[in-house]
Amino acid sequence: MSDILATVLKRVKPTSSEVKFVEEVASEIILRSNEAISKLGFNAKAMLVGSAARGTWLRQDPDIDVFILFDETITREELEQKGMAVAREVAGPAGEEKFAEHPYVTMKFRGLDIDLVPCFDVTDPKRIKSAVDRSPHHQRYVKSKLTPQLVEEVLLLKQFASGTGVYGAELKKQGFSGYLCELLILHYGSFRKLVEEASKWMPGEVIDTLSYYPDKSEPKLIFENQPLVVIDPVDPSRNAAAAVSLQNFSTFVRACQDFLDNPTLRFFFPKRVRLLKPVDLDRILKRRGTRLFCIVFRSPKVVPDVLYPQLRRTEKAIVTRLVQEGFEVLRSDVWANGNSAILIELSVSKLPSVKTRVGPPPNISAKNFIQEHLSSGKCLAGPMVDAAGRVVFEVKREWTDALSLLKEIMARRISFGKNVSESVSQGYRILESDGLKKLLKESGFREFLSEYLNRKLPWYR
Amino acid sequence: MSDILATVLKRVKPTSSEVKFVEEVASEIILRSNEAISKLGFNAKAMLVGSAARGTWLRQDPDIDVFILFDETITREELEQKGMAVAREVAGPAGEEKFAEHPYVTMKFRGLDIDLVPCFDVTDPKRIKSAVDRSPHHQRYVKSKLTPQLVEEVLLLKQFASGTGVYGAELKKQGFSGYLCELLILHYGSFRKLVEEASKWMPGEVIDTLSYYPDKSEPKLIFENQPLVVIDPVDPSRNAAAAVSLQNFSTFVRACQDFLDNPTLRFFFPKRVRLLKPVDLDRILKRRGTRLFCIVFRSPKVVPDVLYPQLRRTEKAIVTRLVQEGFEVLRSDVWANGNSAILIELSVSKLPSVKTRVGPPPNISAKNFIQEHLSSGKCLAGPMVDAAGRVVFEVKREWTDALSLLKEIMARRISFGKNVSESVSQGYRILESDGLKKLLKESGFREFLSEYLNRKLPWYR
Repeated sequence: MSDILATVLKRVKPTSSEVKFVEEVASEIILRSNEAISKLGFNAKAMLVGSAARGTWLRQDPDIDVFILFDETITREELEQKGMAVAREVAGPAGEEKFAEHPYVTMKFRGLDIDLVPCFDVTDPKRIKSAVDRSPHHQRYVKSKLTPQLVEEVLLLKQFASGTGVYGAELKKQGFSGYLCELLILHYGSFRKLVEEASKWMPGEVIDTLSYYPDKSEPKLIFENQPLVVIDPVDPSRNAAAAVSLQNFSTFVRACQDFLDNPTLRFFFPKRVRLLKPVDLDRILKRRGTRLFCIVFRSPKVVPDVLYPQLRRTEKAIVTRLVQEGFEVLRSDVWANGNSAILIELSVSKLPSVKTRVGPPPNISAKNFIQEHLSSGKCLAGPMVDAAGRVVFEVKREWTDALSLLKEIMARRISFGKNVSESVSQGYRILESDGLKKLLKESGFREFLSEYLNRKLPWYR
Repeated sequence: MSDILATVLKRVKPTSSEVKFVEEVASEIILRSNEAISKLGFNAKAMLVGSAARGTWLRQDPDIDVFILFDETITREELEQKGMAVAREVAGPAGEEKFAEHPYVTMKFRGLDIDLVPCFDVTDPKRIKSAVDRSPHHQRYVKSKLTPQLVEEVLLLKQFASGTGVYGAELKKQGFSGYLCELLILHYGSFRKLVEEASKWMPGEVIDTLSYYPDKSEPKLIFENQPLVVIDPVDPSRNAAAAVSLQNFSTFVRACQDFLDNPTLRFFFPKRVRLLKPVDLDRILKRRGTRLFCIVFRSPKVVPDVLYPQLRRTEKAIVTRLVQEGFEVLRSDVWANGNSAILIELSVSKLPSVKTRVGPPPNISAKNFIQEHLSSGKCLAGPMVDAAGRVVFEVKREWTDALSLLKEIMARRISFGKNVSESVSQGYRILESDGLKKLLKESGFREFLSEYLNRKLPWYR
């Protein structure tokens, strides 16, 4: 394993010249930010945070986060107004305004991605006014604990998380943030130890490095149903792993188990997905024998952290209704760039006209059940009694064709995400094989569909 | 309700001339039997048992059971030999030999069905050598308890059980025997009281008229999983309702509930099933949208009490395998006379080539699961991790077409009934709509299929 880790480190650890370059760029942005603050006459200061500030960035992925810290006595409105003024001054026309919990600016500068983020300079991290106010505290905490050796361990973990497909806390991914990776290394002391321990994690795992909770059952209750609970050292009421879905938690645990069994570079640098050619599509769909619907519409103009939860909510609403009506959904997924796509794959798309309605067991009154059915005019047979002694009717099924039902679901849009629903109301298409072939030309969709149809944990590719 | 019951009684209670006729015939058979015993020089005596002996026969259904009681010291072989000699002597060429637990003779005599059954005259009914030895004890017990009023109540119950479709303890029906009807009336005192109480029965109901078991939990344990337990007054180790299936128990309870709600003659004299015409069949099958297979073969030459359990066992083996392979069986049933038929109705008869195999949750090793699947050569996708954190593969489904699978099941005949399996091995057909239309001409099958396709509890027809 040591050889593997050394090889990985050689590929992902920035060289000293790369480090020097990033530091130069970061210093320049900090300088410009402070100049802008002075020029505008604000009471604030710029601070480098994140991986660039801690040296924990992967060389393929340098990323500079500069926070503009304002006094916490000003209002939120003032913060946004003044903070954005500074950011615009620094970025100039190269800047692009974004909006997460509150606004910030991104820019390219000397080839690097820079984020300029206004925040409150809050003394007590338990009393922050906005999620971004925690970052300066995270910065101070991690920086004070990390040694050069630990920085290398963090790099290994980030690359491992990236290679196994669970890196990134954004709502599109629901995985492990950079900060979470740092906390895990600080807790376990090394990548190897982390992997050994994580291979035994159970859903509901609690990691409380500073022992804020003497009784482990307490965080289990507070953070109920969260598969991984890592108490944030700067704010014990927060789970630093709150973003991690059960799916990604489980994937990570499997990756650790498999890596211990057979440590290879594949976990860090998986093979790419083989891209489907349009001519392959029919063959693959035929081999699966399923019916694959792809619902496509213009993506609403919202950030990914708003769009993806809405797409998933919409996917879930569609799948739930199809299942309620008796259709078996084999798998489903969502994708977005300029267009959004919801894939729904059905085992069977035509159902018989008759379905069984099972009523109460012998000892419970079936009077209402029987009367309602008899008066519904939809009964093909019944009342009868089945082998388990329950009253049963056979009734006309409302939807026998999945495509018709899908169109009805799209027309009614019940429990859809708000912006998604608006966008769908402007128009949508339901594509099957021929339509999918055309969509393969769209940037990113080909990767998405190729991965979907040949899905494998990345280290098994 | 009283009017209804009076009307029923008028229709089902034998007139005095009918009673006189049956008594005459019975006396004559007893006389002839005793003459035959003398002539053959055996130590035995004839005894009238059953409904004719107690006056509890329905006028449409007179039935004379004469038992030839031999001393219990002779061997079973001797009993059969001597008993059948007597029966043959009485019946002459009109007799037909049958075989249940041991042999007996049936005959038509002056238009009535007569059974001549040899048995042991066992003093202690707890020590009987064969099930039929109990009948003389049942006869003495019931006869000693029944009053003319109670006889009428028994007639009402028998007709109610018959009309609601649960009368008959034979294995084809798995319902209420005449003796059970008598015991229930002796216990509750009247038909009306029985209906009131039975409408509240729960599966596992225990009726112990003579209080053999001071602790009711004891018979519940002894007769576990039997929906109705009626302790036999002549042998407390026996459940006189052992034949009653959960389905018939539940049907009877529903019938009592519905009858109390709305007492009508329908419960005693239900409408007949409307018989299907061949031209209706396609329309009805189309309306159901299912796929109905009818497996037909020559009935093996065994009595119904052997044949029906085997047919049901075979039906269950077929259904279980179809379900294992992913096909949803909406309903199934069996039928027999010269031919036997097993109906299997599928919701969907074609499945996709791909199916999901769900592996262990995150905290359990998936190593074997993953290795087995990867080396199977049948995986279309996977390993992947689902939203619940479980490892999942998508594999090639072995059977995508129900008819092909059905043919394989019929070829292998695993867990089929023994005689059914032999008969199937001689040849069978799988009929669908056209074949079914031809089979509608076969005696009884038309009634069976008509009832199956428009199944209703009889009092709802």
